[in-house]
Amino acid sequence: MSKRVFPLSKVYGLLEPGPVVLVTTARDGRSNIMAMSWHMMLEFEPPLIGCVICNANYSFGLLERTGECGINISSVEIADKVVGCGNTSGLKIDKFEKFGLTPRTAQRIEAPLIEECFANLECIVVDTCMVVKYGLFVLEVIKAWVDPAVKDPRTIHHLGKGRFMFAGEMVNLKSKMR
Amino acid sequence: MSKRVFPLSKVYGLLEPGPVVLVTTARDGRSNIMAMSWHMMLEFEPPLIGCVICNANYSFGLLERTGECGINISSVEIADKVVGCGNTSGLKIDKFEKFGLTPRTAQRIEAPLIEECFANLECIVVDTCMVVKYGLFVLEVIKAWVDPAVKDPRTIHHLGKGRFMFAGEMVNLKSKMR
Repeated sequence: MSKRVFPLSKVYGLLEPGPVVLVTTARDGRSNIMAMSWHMMLEFEPPLIGCVICNANYSFGLLERTGECGINISSVEIADKVVGCGNTSGLKIDKFEKFGLTPRTAQRIEAPLIEECFANLECIVVDTCMVVKYGLFVLEVIKAWVDPAVKDPRTIHHLGKGRFMFAGEMVNLKSKMR
Repeated sequence: MSKRVFPLSKVYGLLEPGPVVLVTTARDGRSNIMAMSWHMMLEFEPPLIGCVICNANYSFGLLERTGECGINISSVEIADKVVGCGNTSGLKIDKFEKFGLTPRTAQRIEAPLIEECFANLECIVVDTCMVVKYGLFVLEVIKAWVDPAVKDPRTIHHLGKGRFMFAGEMVNLKSKMR
């Protein structure tokens, strides 16, 4: 699949519905993937994302040291791989290899993106003042990609303890909200 | 409908999937409702929520001054009312009256809850250090209610500019994540 550059002004619409995402990080030739649901938009443009990563996760140290990561948005076609990434630690295994995911070179960051995800966001850490207290990193999206072949992706939403909601019907309502 | 007390330890599962919520606030005998999608979990227990409220919103001042609000989780049955709340400002109208929503007295806060929402969270502001920079309030949920008659609620998820996703299929996967 071939990804297309996606306007930064539209990135909020990818994350606002609350999908499970895969966070990619890399350092010293090792890369990792982490499943994450605790994220939110903080600003439209430049797109700022707040996300919580517990310091017990292998990805925490990689993100803290490199100051960059990929946010890869997954759909139901790879739900099993997403759960696999969430159930394992990158301390011991290479998750790209283990779960058959394809690393794709990013343009602005060192961390790889995930080819099988319909959207990829290249992010840098811009604020760490809430990391000690809440594990909350503020990320700026500096480059975004989407697969133009995917319309209305069926995203995955986490309800806790093995329960997930798969995205349903897309609806247009007369909203004036951005 | 009669609501039941919901364990605080399970609140994260209500918000983690990313539904549009209605924020209720009140002061000096006036109450307001605001539609919100920019929220995330920050901690399991006590449940901490991060949410962004722009200072241009009428609710911003009410929340800042009173230090408390209700988070009411809506499902597709009241999607039109939710969009109505998002399209209007409480500065000029009483949204409970305008959209036919029923205020329900909360137990621990002054702000009313919304009867028609399947879940209601009574929240207090516990951290304002990111309000000036990002409009980000940290809320602690001190009491939670759900309608026990509602199973697998079809939540509303905002994609931007009039486009919404209605929750689809509920799925169990072999996840070890909380």
